[in-house]
Amino acid sequence: MENKKSDFSSWYNEIIDISGLSDKRYPIKGMNVWLPYGLKAMKSIDNIIREHVDNSGFQEVQFPVLITRDQLSIEFEHVKGFENEVYWVTRGGMEPLDVEMALRPTSEAAMYGMFQLWVRAHTDLPLKIYQIVSVYRYETKHTRTFIRIREIHFFEAHTAHTDYASAERQMEEYRRIWNEISSELCLPFIVDQRPDWDKFPGAMYTLAFDTAMPGGRSLQIGTIHQYGENFSKNYGIEYLKEDGTHSFVSQTTFGLSERLLAAIIGIHGDDTGLIFPPSIAPVQVIIVPIPSEGADTDGYAVRVKEYLSAAGFRAQIDSRDNYTPGFKFNEWEMKGVPLRIEVGGREVHDSTVTLRLRTGGSRIKCNLTDVASEVSKALSSVKEILRKRASDHFEKSMVDGDTIEKIKNGESMFRFYWCGSRECSDHLEADTGKTVLGMQREMNSTGRCIICGKEGKLATASTPY
Amino acid sequence: MENKKSDFSSWYNEIIDISGLSDKRYPIKGMNVWLPYGLKAMKSIDNIIREHVDNSGFQEVQFPVLITRDQLSIEFEHVKGFENEVYWVTRGGMEPLDVEMALRPTSEAAMYGMFQLWVRAHTDLPLKIYQIVSVYRYETKHTRTFIRIREIHFFEAHTAHTDYASAERQMEEYRRIWNEISSELCLPFIVDQRPDWDKFPGAMYTLAFDTAMPGGRSLQIGTIHQYGENFSKNYGIEYLKEDGTHSFVSQTTFGLSERLLAAIIGIHGDDTGLIFPPSIAPVQVIIVPIPSEGADTDGYAVRVKEYLSAAGFRAQIDSRDNYTPGFKFNEWEMKGVPLRIEVGGREVHDSTVTLRLRTGGSRIKCNLTDVASEVSKALSSVKEILRKRASDHFEKSMVDGDTIEKIKNGESMFRFYWCGSRECSDHLEADTGKTVLGMQREMNSTGRCIICGKEGKLATASTPY
Repeated sequence: MENKKSDFSSWYNEIIDISGLSDKRYPIKGMNVWLPYGLKAMKSIDNIIREHVDNSGFQEVQFPVLITRDQLSIEFEHVKGFENEVYWVTRGGMEPLDVEMALRPTSEAAMYGMFQLWVRAHTDLPLKIYQIVSVYRYETKHTRTFIRIREIHFFEAHTAHTDYASAERQMEEYRRIWNEISSELCLPFIVDQRPDWDKFPGAMYTLAFDTAMPGGRSLQIGTIHQYGENFSKNYGIEYLKEDGTHSFVSQTTFGLSERLLAAIIGIHGDDTGLIFPPSIAPVQVIIVPIPSEGADTDGYAVRVKEYLSAAGFRAQIDSRDNYTPGFKFNEWEMKGVPLRIEVGGREVHDSTVTLRLRTGGSRIKCNLTDVASEVSKALSSVKEILRKRASDHFEKSMVDGDTIEKIKNGESMFRFYWCGSRECSDHLEADTGKTVLGMQREMNSTGRCIICGKEGKLATASTPY
Repeated sequence: MENKKSDFSSWYNEIIDISGLSDKRYPIKGMNVWLPYGLKAMKSIDNIIREHVDNSGFQEVQFPVLITRDQLSIEFEHVKGFENEVYWVTRGGMEPLDVEMALRPTSEAAMYGMFQLWVRAHTDLPLKIYQIVSVYRYETKHTRTFIRIREIHFFEAHTAHTDYASAERQMEEYRRIWNEISSELCLPFIVDQRPDWDKFPGAMYTLAFDTAMPGGRSLQIGTIHQYGENFSKNYGIEYLKEDGTHSFVSQTTFGLSERLLAAIIGIHGDDTGLIFPPSIAPVQVIIVPIPSEGADTDGYAVRVKEYLSAAGFRAQIDSRDNYTPGFKFNEWEMKGVPLRIEVGGREVHDSTVTLRLRTGGSRIKCNLTDVASEVSKALSSVKEILRKRASDHFEKSMVDGDTIEKIKNGESMFRFYWCGSRECSDHLEADTGKTVLGMQREMNSTGRCIICGKEGKLATASTPY
């Protein structure tokens, strides 16, 4: 297997292939097949997202995939931002269509005409909905599984509020929800406010959650957008206020995608293969019987599994008889199962099991009757270890960019002071080849802009995926 | 509200609208918005399907939505069957595409090129996969929510086997799985083998599950197809046999769709509104507090809900204070919640609850501490009542068609004897306006063909949706 550190890109492609997450041999470039193991992991991620947004009062809906050019054209910046990168349906059967239709690249244009029908009065607000669907981009750049593709597994939440202040509170709620989701997935990140020229087409401002992939490139793994009244004025989303007058709603959105899986693969994996955070592992515990004279290790494995299934763990027995235990250990390590349980003659005899964490350390022995609570502890340990490793990696990947030279030659993300002007951003990009991701939203420290020397704030630069 | 019996079509449209299942005001005809309540019901149906196919060794995958014309053209009958009714993507951004691509109308052409890569040896077989995705048909006929639409919520299972006998056993397994699913949904049906001219494009034969909607029209709610080697020969899906020679696989498919929801709405509903089978009801139990001097009915309702949630029921409290209990009763009856629990002053005082089944009958009183088991019993009763009513309705809807006159003038499905020839089928259709759905697969009785008088077998005719 490829070495993750020395050639991350090859490692990444190889592990996706051999672990059975996705098959990219489909005849359309950038459109891949979700294989059972990968789909299970993605659906677990979806369910974590669902749980958190459902608890915050969001409701799940599903809009059509097609959007007419008329719908898309209602907000000018929005259509300009997307019309060059969408797939266009122009024919139904043998007939040319009267109105061309786009495969949704995102769903503002699909949804907001309906919002206009749904929102009548202040009692209808806030409106908080989301959908988990595929979106489509006619991507001309180099494609990469889960990172830059043409059919994207996508979560999009959309809200409408009585006023801007309420929409701003929604932005805070998104941040809280995102903190919880990213913590479940053990993914560290920084919040960058995208420069105006790089915000979502039609938004007032965009906050992006950027993480650091191995090799130092950054990956945007989530975004939240404040639309204010930009869309509602164009789509006519008005409501009746308590005082009898009408007002436009203020809107926000929150987007996540299969890039979360890309980050999990890249950040947590090692030279042995994947390592799944327990919350999304398709198999959380693999039970491997080690054949032993006079001991029914297979039967014993079934008992172990019963304990674990009853406690709600996703446990599986590898009872294939044409493979050695060593082979099985390697295979399940490669596939990222966070915990292995070995049951051999000794375990059967002692009524014990032996646990081995995917993240390393010595084997742990416990009584069969304690297996559920020990597994729970072990999976918590794996989660903590992954979180710690990922955050150490992230800290190492975010370097002080105090000179142009350093930013130019380093393979990492950089924090540096920037005045916020387009001119200085262009200058930095030309000199270093890195992209300015935006101002670091959390950081209040000020300093001199690395280009012009005027007062600036902390910003991030990197080579983004 | 419309009367279901006297004007089913209007009743159907109205109940979908007022219960909040789907919104058909989306600007593209036949592409509707799944609203939260409708989506929840559909996802419960999906999960019942998943549970049954997962238990039979199927694995879930997800293929791209786009299929190139080249892929689609590999099987001649298949492309002929679909090319006139699919949406064609011809442009990416501003550029015309080199190869036109179809939005999948079904996924044989998407999948079988990959099957060709995945299947190498007999040890890879049987291959059993499924996906739950949207499929697209450029429908020119009159559209109807959940029944005839352009974006269809679709389940498709695909298998590959070493030989025809094994594929035939798969067809039997589908039948068993379908019996279980339809039983959960309380949907009666008949198995019709579609005439050759009406089978799935590319199939050797097609068995359809037809049910009877109110008003007497039939609705196809599921199909299973035997492909034999028709696709594998064209897509080159070969495997190495134990004896060292190569052979083509035999294939089958199983398709279900949102028509299941249409059948549930149509068959179980009444003049008061929807009635959901408990297994898929988004809300299984609605708890309505009835305000009473000096009794904390709201607090008591919370305790009732805790009992039910702990037991795994989907229970909800209607605590809105600007509506009367009577209004709430009507609303939740309209929305098809199978069981209502009323808690008033007397219930609080006696530590009891009062149950009312959506299917009618007198109120049932029980102790608070027994509420979970009583609810379980009550939901089972609702299920049994729905099943019985539906099967009574189905029996009444399937009438002996002993004369052409009777078939012509009746508003129902008809069983009649048919020799199997195209000529007699055309003749019957011309004379009666009904369509021949095919031979009744289960029935072995023979009689004289209603048209030509030669020996025939039992067949079905109706006005299908």
